[in-house]
Amino acid sequence: MTTKGVAKGIAGRTHQLTEEVQGTYHYTYGPFAEPVLHIRPGDIVVAETHDAFEGQIDTVECSPSERLNVPFLNPQCGPIYVEGATKGDVIAIRIHSIVPRGPQPAGTAALIPEFGGLVGTTNTALLNDPLPEKVMKMNVTEDGIQFNDKIKLPYEPFIGTLGVSPEIEAVSSLQPDYWGANMDVPDVAPGAIVYFPVQTEGGYVYLGDCHGTQGDGELCGTAVEIPAVVTIQIDLIKQHPIAWPRLENEHFVMTLGSARPLEDATRIAYRELIRWMVDDYGWDMYEAYFFLTQAGKLRVGNIVDPKYTVGASIRKEYLV
Amino acid sequence: MTTKGVAKGIAGRTHQLTEEVQGTYHYTYGPFAEPVLHIRPGDIVVAETHDAFEGQIDTVECSPSERLNVPFLNPQCGPIYVEGATKGDVIAIRIHSIVPRGPQPAGTAALIPEFGGLVGTTNTALLNDPLPEKVMKMNVTEDGIQFNDKIKLPYEPFIGTLGVSPEIEAVSSLQPDYWGANMDVPDVAPGAIVYFPVQTEGGYVYLGDCHGTQGDGELCGTAVEIPAVVTIQIDLIKQHPIAWPRLENEHFVMTLGSARPLEDATRIAYRELIRWMVDDYGWDMYEAYFFLTQAGKLRVGNIVDPKYTVGASIRKEYLV
Amino acid sequence: MTTKGVAKGIAGRTHQLTEEVQGTYHYTYGPFAEPVLHIRPGDIVVAETHDAFEGQIDTVECSPSERLNVPFLNPQCGPIYVEGATKGDVIAIRIHSIVPRGPQPAGTAALIPEFGGLVGTTNTALLNDPLPEKVMKMNVTEDGIQFNDKIKLPYEPFIGTLGVSPEIEAVSSLQPDYWGANMDVPDVAPGAIVYFPVQTEGGYVYLGDCHGTQGDGELCGTAVEIPAVVTIQIDLIKQHPIAWPRLENEHFVMTLGSARPLEDATRIAYRELIRWMVDDYGWDMYEAYFFLTQAGKLRVGNIVDPKYTVGASIRKEYLV
Amino acid sequence: MTTKGVAKGIAGRTHQLTEEVQGTYHYTYGPFAEPVLHIRPGDIVVAETHDAFEGQIDTVECSPSERLNVPFLNPQCGPIYVEGATKGDVIAIRIHSIVPRGPQPAGTAALIPEFGGLVGTTNTALLNDPLPEKVMKMNVTEDGIQFNDKIKLPYEPFIGTLGVSPEIEAVSSLQPDYWGANMDVPDVAPGAIVYFPVQTEGGYVYLGDCHGTQGDGELCGTAVEIPAVVTIQIDLIKQHPIAWPRLENEHFVMTLGSARPLEDATRIAYRELIRWMVDDYGWDMYEAYFFLTQAGKLRVGNIVDPKYTVGASIRKEYLV
Repeated sequence: MTTKGVAKGIAGRTHQLTEEVQGTYHYTYGPFAEPVLHIRPGDIVVAETHDAFEGQIDTVECSPSERLNVPFLNPQCGPIYVEGATKGDVIAIRIHSIVPRGPQPAGTAALIPEFGGLVGTTNTALLNDPLPEKVMKMNVTEDGIQFNDKIKLPYEPFIGTLGVSPEIEAVSSLQPDYWGANMDVPDVAPGAIVYFPVQTEGGYVYLGDCHGTQGDGELCGTAVEIPAVVTIQIDLIKQHPIAWPRLENEHFVMTLGSARPLEDATRIAYRELIRWMVDDYGWDMYEAYFFLTQAGKLRVGNIVDPKYTVGASIRKEYLV
Repeated sequence: MTTKGVAKGIAGRTHQLTEEVQGTYHYTYGPFAEPVLHIRPGDIVVAETHDAFEGQIDTVECSPSERLNVPFLNPQCGPIYVEGATKGDVIAIRIHSIVPRGPQPAGTAALIPEFGGLVGTTNTALLNDPLPEKVMKMNVTEDGIQFNDKIKLPYEPFIGTLGVSPEIEAVSSLQPDYWGANMDVPDVAPGAIVYFPVQTEGGYVYLGDCHGTQGDGELCGTAVEIPAVVTIQIDLIKQHPIAWPRLENEHFVMTLGSARPLEDATRIAYRELIRWMVDDYGWDMYEAYFFLTQAGKLRVGNIVDPKYTVGASIRKEYLV
Repeated sequence: MTTKGVAKGIAGRTHQLTEEVQGTYHYTYGPFAEPVLHIRPGDIVVAETHDAFEGQIDTVECSPSERLNVPFLNPQCGPIYVEGATKGDVIAIRIHSIVPRGPQPAGTAALIPEFGGLVGTTNTALLNDPLPEKVMKMNVTEDGIQFNDKIKLPYEPFIGTLGVSPEIEAVSSLQPDYWGANMDVPDVAPGAIVYFPVQTEGGYVYLGDCHGTQGDGELCGTAVEIPAVVTIQIDLIKQHPIAWPRLENEHFVMTLGSARPLEDATRIAYRELIRWMVDDYGWDMYEAYFFLTQAGKLRVGNIVDPKYTVGASIRKEYLV
Repeated sequence: MTTKGVAKGIAGRTHQLTEEVQGTYHYTYGPFAEPVLHIRPGDIVVAETHDAFEGQIDTVECSPSERLNVPFLNPQCGPIYVEGATKGDVIAIRIHSIVPRGPQPAGTAALIPEFGGLVGTTNTALLNDPLPEKVMKMNVTEDGIQFNDKIKLPYEPFIGTLGVSPEIEAVSSLQPDYWGANMDVPDVAPGAIVYFPVQTEGGYVYLGDCHGTQGDGELCGTAVEIPAVVTIQIDLIKQHPIAWPRLENEHFVMTLGSARPLEDATRIAYRELIRWMVDDYGWDMYEAYFFLTQAGKLRVGNIVDPKYTVGASIRKEYLV
């Protein structure tokens, strides 16, 4: 799929999307914002992202619910206008690197009332008292994440929120959907190419919400949230309709579905993967259905966002 | 709650929101559209709504999937700017009447691929073949709905999609949410007052998608869809925070929750009803929990929209 | 369907299923217990049922979690062996009356840890602290239910748990399923006939768990639980395969589905209702699908049991 | 946990549980069957298991729905009575080996109507036509699985269905639950120890349903189903209450939750893992919640059985 790009693999200009260039960050994925960059397919963008809290949770003593200004959460860089992108195209984003930025401790996690995988929420609306609010601050460098005195986790960064604009909607950057956004899938990492279905003229790429690492499901709702310098290359594939985001890396191809309940996210991902195998690799639909039963892998991205996200993948060696 | 309105029960001006005044209809609930009316609390609006298909499904022979131009579905009148409305207020809408308009057969229902309660959908993504597309056209007057040669259903009209704008999002009018919109709850009918939590300056009321009648759940996804003349009166209650839409009529008070899976919509509705009983009627939380267990009623609005909607209600005689 | 019964509407013998005749009550629906009665189609059974707690929650001060001896919950009368019943038949149970028995206060409701519709449970497993345990005791007579000093609720009794044995399984009487059992649907009331698909020789009818009244969803998990004298008439319809329980009364026919999530219970119920309309009333499947969209009704029985139960119904006047 | 066993790591007698010794296979997990073996903690059992279809799907031409005799599916060896086991204990099963047996092609997969992850089912009850029935037969040896002419999959065998009896129920071996059974989790493989909460005197171990390999979710509902010779060692840990099955191998500890919808299975698994970390490894509950957010892994076992199964795990290196 990468070879189908307009840029033919040739790197274009590099654009610096610093905090100054960005100016105001955005809290929705939509077509109503003014593009901060106009780029050509093949161009590289170096973006300074905020953490999901826009730096407001700066001490372990502070109260997240007091500091966070709902709905102004999960600030995003962009939109980036990709020349030539129109509905029915695919925007392909190769992730080059994600480097933590800002003063240490750069990493933040927090327990926020009515939010998280093991608590009552605004959707799973219950009468139980919420857990106490808690904040963790962690030193995060490319050498690792100091979770506590005893445990240093490997630095396995990825982009939590990445995607394009819907056509006529502007939807909270907290929500993952068919245009990408807050999928919180750890495979959206350096080395991967992620494909998004263009819905609107210019595509309008947004990104933000980097994580130093994250477990499957993003259990408490907040990973190792970091501000970062993200380097991505953006290409364009003309007229290649896909319904949901796709991803590939050295080892596998993956489709990404977002829905509730979690089985629906899984169904979306697996059905899209069958479609990919059928359309691009010549499989028979039933044989692909049988094969994924024996060799498909699932990655649960998040079980905490407005929609849950699941990635379904198959190793590339089986596709030839 | 009605007596708390700014208008003190006094009717204000009447505004005609004809097709001409409306001009372009809208397909999202959001703050980015230009208001078509500015009104004062207590004013009456008479709106000409389209059916959910904007009249495009005009014969039983036509193919819905060819006629419908996704995502330009479920056209809405509005937004109506309510003077003085700010975040934290409640907009109260009293529904006076809903009269079918346009040539007969005025009512339309259709089976649309990947949409409906008993088929695989874009969310419950399956490999089964879709059902054949089908269209029903029905004569609809205030005397009744001619379902077929043998059955005439009573005319029990309601507004399928009604609500206010979210604060920073613009979300498809197909989706019900805490701001109202496509709840498809038959109790949103003449005689009812519906309360919406204001999210943004002026409130931005939208409405459309009237139904001549509808069963619980809106099973196939399309009720008796009609264009209509809708008369509503809009009032404003200052600083009365509610989290989800509420409704009252002669008999009961009802809270409306929208979510997936369906039990979460139910939980939202019942929890909000407990909060209403506690805040406005002085119940103890546990006693309200016990009482709704014995006397609460549930109305399943829809099991087909992007979120499902459930209304939880209690008879007024028990609240005093 | 009633006219299809072996008994041809003729009442047979009356059997007293007192506590003494019953002896040990049962906590599962299964074929391993010894029948307490052998009856013929048309016979009447007068059963003394316990409440769901077997009378162990006898004061408002007691702790349900200490008193209840899991899994020995929801005691059932039966099994009743119906002569001639074999797999593929239907057992039809006409409910004649439900009268409270035992000393007052005869009605009990309780908040039990990890159980209920608005709390974390053993399935929706959360970290939040449970609600405090609470017990309500209520006087219950055929004149009404004294909920508290101010509110007297009408006595609207029904059988919470009623059904037949699965073929090879013995499943907790807390669980509703295709064989009936703990559906907690208020329409299983005097005047109704309920139909169950026979799975095993003799059918093995069980019953218990009467409620003085109950709201939709049985929100906190415990209705007005009462011990009762239940009078039912049991008939047999030979070779009439149905997949899930069905019900009819003076006004409507209803199908009952039990599953999680709640939308699956709804789908089961509506699909079975379509099948009923097609098989017994000659409807076209698509027309029935369209019609239930406009005129179907849903009753949410419970959102608290191991499976949730929904009834889908249509008024009889539309079926002719 | 292993060192806590009654057998103190000493292997006891070896018991041959051949087809002849087994005699009749079982289709439920329950206490009503006669034990086929009485063993002591530490003993080894070599069992001849059938495939989930009991060998009835023997050609690619046959019709699964004609060959399968519902509910007599998923035949199980056992029950094995473990001396000294009582409620509140844990039965620990170390899996030594799983070797395919019987004539080639030994592996079977099939598309069965109303069953599978990407089709309407008896629960997700829809009107769409089912997929055509299909059967795959595959040569399976310890060298690999010949999926088709081009693809040979590695032999990664595991026990699909393994567990103990519930206390008073006898539940279809198709259903996974807190007693184990049809979890279909690929980590239940040679090298692993699986822990089950004893519910009844003797524990009553059942096993069957081996898979030559399986992808996450067991998408179409049938993995590479094989008859096998399974060698397990069974130990007993006295008075060590756990709520759900647990597993450990060289690399990680895992908890296994089964429920619908899929997020509830995930919640169960993660909550149990937190409890394990707190009880046996001295973690603070909140720190464990934070830590699994960053380093927990999820394995989706099945999304096709009566309950879905998810395993939540954490690497052992983090627990010290």
